[in-house]
Amino acid sequence: MSKKIDRRAVIGGLATGTAAAAVSAPAYAQGKRRLKMVTTWPKNFPGLGTAPENIAKRVSAMTDGQIEIKIYAAGELVGAFESFDAVSTGTADMYNGAEYYWQGKSTAFNFFTAVPFGMTAQELNAWIDFGGGRRLWEELSAKFNVIAFQSANTGVQMGGWFNKEITSLDGFKGLKIRMPGLGGEVMRRLGAAAVALPGGEIFPSMKSGAIDASEWVGPWNDLAFGFHQVAEYYYCPGFHEPGAGLSTGVNLDVWNSLSKSQQEIIRNACAAENASTTSEYNYKNASALDTLVKKHNVKVRSFSPEIMQALKQTSDKVLAEAAAKDPFTAKVFESFKASLANSMAWGARSEEPYTLARRQV
Amino acid sequence: MSKKIDRRAVIGGLATGTAAAAVSAPAYAQGKRRLKMVTTWPKNFPGLGTAPENIAKRVSAMTDGQIEIKIYAAGELVGAFESFDAVSTGTADMYNGAEYYWQGKSTAFNFFTAVPFGMTAQELNAWIDFGGGRRLWEELSAKFNVIAFQSANTGVQMGGWFNKEITSLDGFKGLKIRMPGLGGEVMRRLGAAAVALPGGEIFPSMKSGAIDASEWVGPWNDLAFGFHQVAEYYYCPGFHEPGAGLSTGVNLDVWNSLSKSQQEIIRNACAAENASTTSEYNYKNASALDTLVKKHNVKVRSFSPEIMQALKQTSDKVLAEAAAKDPFTAKVFESFKASLANSMAWGARSEEPYTLARRQV
Repeated sequence: MSKKIDRRAVIGGLATGTAAAAVSAPAYAQGKRRLKMVTTWPKNFPGLGTAPENIAKRVSAMTDGQIEIKIYAAGELVGAFESFDAVSTGTADMYNGAEYYWQGKSTAFNFFTAVPFGMTAQELNAWIDFGGGRRLWEELSAKFNVIAFQSANTGVQMGGWFNKEITSLDGFKGLKIRMPGLGGEVMRRLGAAAVALPGGEIFPSMKSGAIDASEWVGPWNDLAFGFHQVAEYYYCPGFHEPGAGLSTGVNLDVWNSLSKSQQEIIRNACAAENASTTSEYNYKNASALDTLVKKHNVKVRSFSPEIMQALKQTSDKVLAEAAAKDPFTAKVFESFKASLANSMAWGARSEEPYTLARRQV
Repeated sequence: MSKKIDRRAVIGGLATGTAAAAVSAPAYAQGKRRLKMVTTWPKNFPGLGTAPENIAKRVSAMTDGQIEIKIYAAGELVGAFESFDAVSTGTADMYNGAEYYWQGKSTAFNFFTAVPFGMTAQELNAWIDFGGGRRLWEELSAKFNVIAFQSANTGVQMGGWFNKEITSLDGFKGLKIRMPGLGGEVMRRLGAAAVALPGGEIFPSMKSGAIDASEWVGPWNDLAFGFHQVAEYYYCPGFHEPGAGLSTGVNLDVWNSLSKSQQEIIRNACAAENASTTSEYNYKNASALDTLVKKHNVKVRSFSPEIMQALKQTSDKVLAEAAAKDPFTAKVFESFKASLANSMAWGARSEEPYTLARRQV
C-alpha cells in the first residue's frame, strides 16, 4: 500500500515541498486525494448547487473515500465567473458551472450550455456523446488546461420574469434584463439592455429596480429565489435556453494525475448526475409552477407567435455572426447544427407526434 | 490485503466448498469477482446488446478489474425469457433485459419498461428517481430475490412493421402481430392475435408468414434486423412503447455480498449507460430511417386520428384492468399515473410548446 498523501495538507504547507516531490506520480495517484471544486452557484441551491454536492458524494462513495471533493459556493474561494480561471491556473482543482459563463474566452463555449432556439437536454446529450460535440469540447477546454464533462441539465427553461407584459417587440425596447449567453445578445438586438449577473445578484437587482426583468431557470429554481416577490409576469417557454447543460471541469494536470479508474469514476459520476438532475427538474417544476400560480398569483404568459418569430430570426442572425467570429467557433457551430437537424428529423417521427397525440386523444 | 477469490472458480468446483465458506463476507467482498450476466438480446445487438457490454466495461474500468462481468447472449446460458428466473435462483448473477418480459410473475413489471400511452424516457426516469417508482420497483423485485436498475432506454419506439396498410380498425382483425407487454393486450382487444417473441425470432417468423406484423424498437435497431426485407409499411410513432426502459437486475445475495463502493459503481454505471443509450438512439435513428426510406423504399405511415383514439381508449381500459389484478399493481399504477400527470403538466409549459415553436417559426 502506498503512503497516503493528503493533498490539502500538502498545499496548505503542512508537509514540506520535498516530501511532496518525493512521491512518484503513480504512487501519488493511488493516495487519498482532497480536491477543491469552485462553483458558480449559491450553497446547496436546488439542482444547480446540489448537483456538485451529489457528484462529490458519488465520487467519495465509489472510491471508498479515496477522493474527497470539497465544494465552494460562488464567492467563497473565488467569484462565480472567476471559477474557470481558478481551475485553468490551478488555484482550484475543479469547477461546476455553465460553460457560457466563459464566452469571453471563446464564443464557442456557448454551444456547450445552450443557445437560442438550440437543443433540448436530450439533443445536447446526443450531440456531445454521439454527434462529435465531445471531441470539440475537449479541444476547446484543453487550450485552457481544462477537461470538462456534462454534469447537470435544467431541461427547457422558462422565458423569465418581467415587471410588465410583453405584448409586442416594443416591450423589449429599453428593457433592462438579466440574460447571459447569446440569448442576451438577442435581447440587445431587440433594443434591450442585457446583462449577465450571477444568480445570487438577481433578486436584489430586481428589487432595487436596477433591472426590470430576468431569466433564471424554471419554477423549481425561481421559486427558491423568490422572484415572484419582485415581478408579476412569468413567460414560457424560454427561447434562449431549451436545455441548459451545466458542467464539471477539471484542471488537466490534476486529471492526468488521477488513475484510469478514478477518471472513469468521475466520468460516470458526472454522467449519472447529469441524468439525475434532468429528472429532478422534470419532476419538481410542475408542482413549483403550481405553487407560483395558485399561492403567489403569478401570471403565466407566452410570447405571441409574432414575437417568437422575431426572436427566432434574430437568434439565427446572432448565431451566424457568433460562428463567424473565429474558425473554431464556426466548426463547433457546424457540428452543432448538423446534430440538431439530425435529432429534429427523428423528433418529427417520435417524441413530438407522440406527446401531441397523447395530449389530443 | 485479503485473499482474492475467483468466484467463477468457486462455482465451477475448482475450489472446495470449505474454502469458499471459510472466507468471511467482508473479505469475500474485497476479492476479485467474476459475475455472469444473462441477457434477453442477441450478441452485441445495437443498443440493446451493446448496453450490457458497455456496463461491464464501465464496471471493470471503475473497479480497476476487481469486478469483471461476462455477458451471455439470449440462448447462450438460458433462453431470453428465462433470464429473470436464472438470476432469481442464482443460476446467473445478473440479467439485462426488459422488465415487461417478466409480466407473467407480476403485471406490475410492465410499468418499469413501458405501457401504452405511458411515459417517455425522460418521464420514466423522473418517476423512478423522484416520483416514487424506485421504492416500488425494489419492493417488487425483492420478492424474487432481485434488485434492478434502469440501464438503457430506446426512446419513443416506432409503431411497427406491417405487410399491409392499416387504414381502419378492421386492419387489426385477425392480424398476427408480435407485440409484448400490455401493448399486445391492446392488440388482442382490437381483434389481433398478439404474441411475445424474443427479438431473434421475429425475422424468421415474419419471413415464413407465421406473423403478419411486428413491432421491435426503431429504425436503428430494425434496420439491423432487416425487417424491411419482410414488410413494406413502417408505422410511427409507437403508441405502445413511448420510451422503453431496459434494466439490469442483480441477484440480491450477490448484491449484498458486494462492498458499498462496488454497489455504488454498479448503480452509477447503469445510470450513465441508461443516459448514453437514450442519446445513441436519439442520434442514430434519424439516419437509419433515412436509409430505410431512401435505400430500401420503406413506406412510412402514421395511424389515423381515429385509430389513435381507439388505441388510446383501449389502452386506458387495459391499464385499468391490469391495475385491478392485485393491490400491488394497483399501487404501482397510481404512483405511475400521478408522476405522469405531473410530468405532463410541466411538458405543456416547456418541451412541447418549445419544440412546436421551433418547428413552426
